[in-house]
Amino acid sequence: MVDPPPIITLTTDFGLSDAYVASLKGVILGLNPAATIVDVSHEVRPQQVVQGAFILGSASPYFPQGTIHLAVVDPGVGTERRGLVLVRPRAVFVGPDNGLLSAALPEDARTGAAEPWQASAVPLPEGYRAFAITRKKYMRDRVSTTFHGRDVFAPVAAHLSLGVPAREFGERATSILAFPPFRARCQPDGSLHGRVLHVDRFGNLVTDVREEDLPSGAVQVEIGGRVVNGLRRTYGEGEGLIALIGSSGFLEIALPNGSASALLGTQLGDQVVVKPA
Amino acid sequence: MVDPPPIITLTTDFGLSDAYVASLKGVILGLNPAATIVDVSHEVRPQQVVQGAFILGSASPYFPQGTIHLAVVDPGVGTERRGLVLVRPRAVFVGPDNGLLSAALPEDARTGAAEPWQASAVPLPEGYRAFAITRKKYMRDRVSTTFHGRDVFAPVAAHLSLGVPAREFGERATSILAFPPFRARCQPDGSLHGRVLHVDRFGNLVTDVREEDLPSGAVQVEIGGRVVNGLRRTYGEGEGLIALIGSSGFLEIALPNGSASALLGTQLGDQVVVKPA
Amino acid sequence: MVDPPPIITLTTDFGLSDAYVASLKGVILGLNPAATIVDVSHEVRPQQVVQGAFILGSASPYFPQGTIHLAVVDPGVGTERRGLVLVRPRAVFVGPDNGLLSAALPEDARTGAAEPWQASAVPLPEGYRAFAITRKKYMRDRVSTTFHGRDVFAPVAAHLSLGVPAREFGERATSILAFPPFRARCQPDGSLHGRVLHVDRFGNLVTDVREEDLPSGAVQVEIGGRVVNGLRRTYGEGEGLIALIGSSGFLEIALPNGSASALLGTQLGDQVVVKPA
Repeated sequence: MVDPPPIITLTTDFGLSDAYVASLKGVILGLNPAATIVDVSHEVRPQQVVQGAFILGSASPYFPQGTIHLAVVDPGVGTERRGLVLVRPRAVFVGPDNGLLSAALPEDARTGAAEPWQASAVPLPEGYRAFAITRKKYMRDRVSTTFHGRDVFAPVAAHLSLGVPAREFGERATSILAFPPFRARCQPDGSLHGRVLHVDRFGNLVTDVREEDLPSGAVQVEIGGRVVNGLRRTYGEGEGLIALIGSSGFLEIALPNGSASALLGTQLGDQVVVKPA
Repeated sequence: MVDPPPIITLTTDFGLSDAYVASLKGVILGLNPAATIVDVSHEVRPQQVVQGAFILGSASPYFPQGTIHLAVVDPGVGTERRGLVLVRPRAVFVGPDNGLLSAALPEDARTGAAEPWQASAVPLPEGYRAFAITRKKYMRDRVSTTFHGRDVFAPVAAHLSLGVPAREFGERATSILAFPPFRARCQPDGSLHGRVLHVDRFGNLVTDVREEDLPSGAVQVEIGGRVVNGLRRTYGEGEGLIALIGSSGFLEIALPNGSASALLGTQLGDQVVVKPA
Repeated sequence: MVDPPPIITLTTDFGLSDAYVASLKGVILGLNPAATIVDVSHEVRPQQVVQGAFILGSASPYFPQGTIHLAVVDPGVGTERRGLVLVRPRAVFVGPDNGLLSAALPEDARTGAAEPWQASAVPLPEGYRAFAITRKKYMRDRVSTTFHGRDVFAPVAAHLSLGVPAREFGERATSILAFPPFRARCQPDGSLHGRVLHVDRFGNLVTDVREEDLPSGAVQVEIGGRVVNGLRRTYGEGEGLIALIGSSGFLEIALPNGSASALLGTQLGDQVVVKPA
């Protein structure tokens, strides 16, 4: 009979050593003490909007219907960039309109830029609605120019969790900045040219090569001047560098009992090539 | 009709890799399963009481009325230093009496030491009450000499959240150790001589220079042998080192898309000077 | 009249920068929105099962009756290693059967291997029951080969918190992999030969030497080529390296206002010797 408490997730580049994350939580709980707040990550690399979109997009599918995802990786805070509430089936996203909310969009809607990792305006797909956050009534009384997470996005997320309709926060927006899908490109010769999207805690290199795009049959993977043959099924198999499909469906390069990232000195964005063996 | 669950915040130097923080949470939830526990930070530098007071003071204003702030940066644990419950309008603070609870006091009450960052005893201002924690009834059965966070402060915070009045925990205290306000001093020549209070996750240098103390008109900021001219409004403006007023009202030195701390090699306590331009 | 919300703790080596921990939490809250989730640590060193067992064992005694401890340090994920639900008096543990759940067993049941830090099968003691997790009904629809934390253990923990009996998850198991107790050995000459079990956030070296095993009278501690005389009572006493009994009853080597680990360059597993002085 009682609705479950609303869930608000947080994805930021604030780190965990400062008071920033706690300020957000205090503001949210002051407005809605019943909110369940869940940290997705606060360790997005500073101002790396693409990485924030990737991490948020990796976590959000696992949250229940009605979850509110608050995301703040916001190098343009205080400038003309808009803040958005984006309502989609099953979930609501709140954050700056700088590509971060790409995570909320279906891939076939992320059609703007040809260049990977460059955000461009795309129209909202059917069933999605967005609103530019402009109504001061739902912000903190004094809005700093440097911390909209605390002064704008947190109170908006809290009000959403209290049942305020998304249209209340401002004018309807018809487009949103989005990155192209994180997806390696198929080349004329049948190979896939992708990039390192993320280096995880284990030093695994998560690439934008998707399981479903792999050539059929055996493959070889080239990265950082090395060649890795074949795909493994688990991290426990093989010696030296291995390749496998990780838990989000992306190709990963791993070093069992070690760090592939440390071994290869890989940077975000480095190229990976997959060919039929 | 139902009171919102009580909020207990945690500010410590325990880090996140050990079992220390979880032990506190287990003890609290064992006594009050309805408590909402919020981490402020566990990454206060080990035993840096001043930094703990700064971070707690940065976060606490954003929490709702009735919040209980539990803080443990406690190099003197097990020695004669007292533990305190400090009740002030809107909030309660629990922790060692070593300056950490400065964050709970109004600035004009922090009048003791002339030397910055040195704690001295100050009388409690009107409307504030403090109690030395002495009643064993509210501690864990066996109190270790090295972990009062778990054995004393956590159970006291939990009992407070259950409605036990502060006077129950021990004798009234009439003074408290406090740091002088984190506030740069105005010099006879009209300049402000301040210090770096905190280096945040982005490498921004947060100083004790307050917005309201700045000379009117244009300013220049000297730090680490560099001169920064003028104040920006956002992190997105300017090239190279910039100065701006951060989200807590303190002057910050930042490097857009980089780390001012790494560039300058700054230490906590380093001097910053602000002059009329 | 209302039961307190069930507590589920998490102990993993997932780190805090990726979406892994949040995925677990989303899965749990999707099944049981009333669960109270508490992080023990996600900073177990990658694949260091022993360290995971130590940290979980350090935190679990402080949680209330009925707590569900979910632990995932799982280098063998996707291989033949079993997943277990282990029910013991006062608590339930869920995780891979690789030694990690040693933390749930009484010490006198951890009798298998003679070699420290090597897990071997031991029979379950009286009052303990374990079940191999095999029923697909309680897993996510698609179980990846690399992330049983999200796809198997998290949904099992959530179902346990909803009241599903442990026997529902699969076949009864009669043995479990366990490490020998973390306990220094008494030598014929009356000295204790132990190891560094854990380096905490402060650089304190936590050893497997127990308070109750110490020789009576004054002691001296040898570690990393240094000799430390006598035991202190608190971290605030003494100059240079000190030895004391930490908050979990283990001997620790500490450097007041510094890091013993950094000073000595200690590794996990390094030897410590305690002798009568």
